[in-house]
Amino acid sequence: MAGAGVISREREADATVAIGRLRDAFGDRVKTGATWREQHGHTTSYLASQPPDAVFAPKDVDEIRRAVVICAAERFPVIPFGGGTSLEGQLNAPRGGLSLDMSDMNRILAVNTDDLDCVVEPGVTRHQLNAHVRSSGLFFPIDPGADASLGGMASTRASGTNAVRYGTMKQNVLSMKVVLPNGELIQTAQRARKSSAGYDLTSLFVGAEGTLGVIAELSVRLYGLPEKIVSGTTYFPTLDATVRTVIETIQMGIPVARLELMDPLCMRAVNAYSGLALPEEPTLFVEFHGMPAGVDEQVSVFAELCAANGAAPFRSAARLEDRDRLWAARHNLYFAFPELRRDARGIPTDVCVPISRLAECVGVTEADIARSGLLAPIVGHVGDGNFHLMILVDPEDPEEMARAHGALERLNERAIRMGGTCTGEHGIGQGKRRFMAMEFGGALDLMKAIKATVDPATIMNPEKIL
Amino acid sequence: MAGAGVISREREADATVAIGRLRDAFGDRVKTGATWREQHGHTTSYLASQPPDAVFAPKDVDEIRRAVVICAAERFPVIPFGGGTSLEGQLNAPRGGLSLDMSDMNRILAVNTDDLDCVVEPGVTRHQLNAHVRSSGLFFPIDPGADASLGGMASTRASGTNAVRYGTMKQNVLSMKVVLPNGELIQTAQRARKSSAGYDLTSLFVGAEGTLGVIAELSVRLYGLPEKIVSGTTYFPTLDATVRTVIETIQMGIPVARLELMDPLCMRAVNAYSGLALPEEPTLFVEFHGMPAGVDEQVSVFAELCAANGAAPFRSAARLEDRDRLWAARHNLYFAFPELRRDARGIPTDVCVPISRLAECVGVTEADIARSGLLAPIVGHVGDGNFHLMILVDPEDPEEMARAHGALERLNERAIRMGGTCTGEHGIGQGKRRFMAMEFGGALDLMKAIKATVDPATIMNPEKIL
Repeated sequence: MAGAGVISREREADATVAIGRLRDAFGDRVKTGATWREQHGHTTSYLASQPPDAVFAPKDVDEIRRAVVICAAERFPVIPFGGGTSLEGQLNAPRGGLSLDMSDMNRILAVNTDDLDCVVEPGVTRHQLNAHVRSSGLFFPIDPGADASLGGMASTRASGTNAVRYGTMKQNVLSMKVVLPNGELIQTAQRARKSSAGYDLTSLFVGAEGTLGVIAELSVRLYGLPEKIVSGTTYFPTLDATVRTVIETIQMGIPVARLELMDPLCMRAVNAYSGLALPEEPTLFVEFHGMPAGVDEQVSVFAELCAANGAAPFRSAARLEDRDRLWAARHNLYFAFPELRRDARGIPTDVCVPISRLAECVGVTEADIARSGLLAPIVGHVGDGNFHLMILVDPEDPEEMARAHGALERLNERAIRMGGTCTGEHGIGQGKRRFMAMEFGGALDLMKAIKATVDPATIMNPEKIL
Repeated sequence: MAGAGVISREREADATVAIGRLRDAFGDRVKTGATWREQHGHTTSYLASQPPDAVFAPKDVDEIRRAVVICAAERFPVIPFGGGTSLEGQLNAPRGGLSLDMSDMNRILAVNTDDLDCVVEPGVTRHQLNAHVRSSGLFFPIDPGADASLGGMASTRASGTNAVRYGTMKQNVLSMKVVLPNGELIQTAQRARKSSAGYDLTSLFVGAEGTLGVIAELSVRLYGLPEKIVSGTTYFPTLDATVRTVIETIQMGIPVARLELMDPLCMRAVNAYSGLALPEEPTLFVEFHGMPAGVDEQVSVFAELCAANGAAPFRSAARLEDRDRLWAARHNLYFAFPELRRDARGIPTDVCVPISRLAECVGVTEADIARSGLLAPIVGHVGDGNFHLMILVDPEDPEEMARAHGALERLNERAIRMGGTCTGEHGIGQGKRRFMAMEFGGALDLMKAIKATVDPATIMNPEKIL
């Protein structure tokens, strides 16, 4: 920790000068009070909080540029801050620096109904966007659970329950304005729905977690609201049967919009939280979007596949209030987990594997968790091969924390060995950096070379991803 | 041209040494005969052919690496060569060098039916892949017209008639093995269907046209063969009405699989070529994929939209032979164009604009073409806002060629000014380099910085894209 101390002393010297210059430019809008700083070092996770030295909320692209230019001159780190909902320490400030809070940049600049896209500032949240476009008959499908900002969602390449049908942020960001670490503003692409022109810079910044620049504006795809939506649920005798049904559903080309797995432990939490008596078996929550006859056909074929794999009869709901009740059980899951163990803290994590390995990966993981004496419900965006664990631990118990970290380590390594990734949608941040070498081998050096080219002074969100 | 001469003399000196070292390694498999060289400088387009100094067809990844290491040491350019079907001079060798012909690397290494993906060598063509996976009930949808290689299609970020439903190569390549200019082999990603881990290197190499490395292996997505396919066609009183129908179709969420526009000049060519008497009006060719009731519903709703926009009754075909006949007219278009003007040569080009600007962009372009005294049928992947012009010219007539180049110049600039791109699917190669600055502004510098980092000696496909 001696090294950390040295960095910290150096940083304090820099911080005073940098903050002084930022104050010259933006006055008392540059906040250094403990409350501001602590709110912006908040990690929503098990990782220790590392507050920035200062917080500034730019009002427009030009203010982002001016702030970045000052920080670059002073080698003062810049940490872009969206909704504050990331899970792997993406917003921490291990070297101090400026948290660039995008919450004041929350204007929807254009909605192009004919093009099914819109242009937004990075602080616009997905709920805000959906409320705005609903009256045009449109929606933005990416749903990571939290009401995250679009800039943050692009930065972590977020996805969620709808990704099996609508893709992730990778497929849904058309173009971005980005302030580079040297203060230059670039536009990564035009607004056309496809292009073969040049390197795909949009995809380079989607998922870069703010380590290559500050997202200052985004164009994202929208979709027409489906004419008919049917949700439903059923449960299976085994995990294998559940995953087999999912594989057959996708092979048949049923364009299912959501396909969520909850394991028996999840179902126990749901029952306890909601006072229900649902079977505590592997359960699928499903949703279909489309035109009426097409949706009815999808539901009926899916129900047949479930039955052929030994599931209980598929129960579907087309009415809004019934669908809402069904998905509330899924969305309230995080509130239900404490029912499994009072006073425990959750360590959330996610991995993603080829779906052919999903049943095996989940099965071995459940056995490992049990053998480790841990409690960890599993919920999966199973159509993508992506699943989440919430390890319920007492953070004050170092021995239990060590067991939890051992299980996490083995989970990530297992997923990578099965041809998967250490994160399907949470991103790398600080929490998963140690798995990058195993997942990428020599390709990690290429990422580091790109980082060094774009951000030679390493001011953008340092000590993340790489 | 003095500069070009200097480069050429320097190159000749290098070439002898480089070819000598390549011969030491690979013997007489390194070809330098005129026929070999000319075949590999063939551009399939109006651009002058620039043959490489030598041609070598590696048999495996290790041979690619060994060849690249020799070329790097001798600063001898490397031009990856797939099916030879690119349209913007991507395969030309303006500085000489080695054409790395992938046609011997044409093995399908794995088909993962449960994961709906496969692993192939870069020389596998899309027809070959589709023939191989058909018996498993699967298909690979990307259809750029020609029987291109998968490596080449990834390199130019190809798409085609199915992109409106299935996306482009950007959405369909899961991972690649790439030999970097220093001979290192990297894997860009694991095979999971989504990931939030690190920079999106896969997307960096998709569309890089071989300027950053040699694609040595690809994992691409497959799809279940649709249970029912219906094709159909109708024509419209105006271009505006045609595009309006397309916009409404996509807004309604009808998951149309193909949506192709042919302008009156195209229809005249089709009639002349096939001895038909179809109306010479803006015409849509459409295809629907899905389960039976869903497809029937899509066809019926689409037909209503057409009628509401003043189209002739929508004529659909569900039988394979009828569908084949219909699409043959579309696919034979390039053979039909000479019917419009005997002995002319075609200059093919494509641009892509936001669909809200498509009717305007096509309309202004048609007027410009007419005013320029040129003949240029237009065919469009209209669901994406992407359209093609084939300017029919006498290449021996310098005055006409100048008029054609003027129209091309204005077309590309018009598309960019409308928020579009100078190429939706052909790529930049040599032919569109001059539009990159207008389309990307300062972002072009970032592309150049990435190129300089990955390929500091500029051996990979020099003088392309950037």
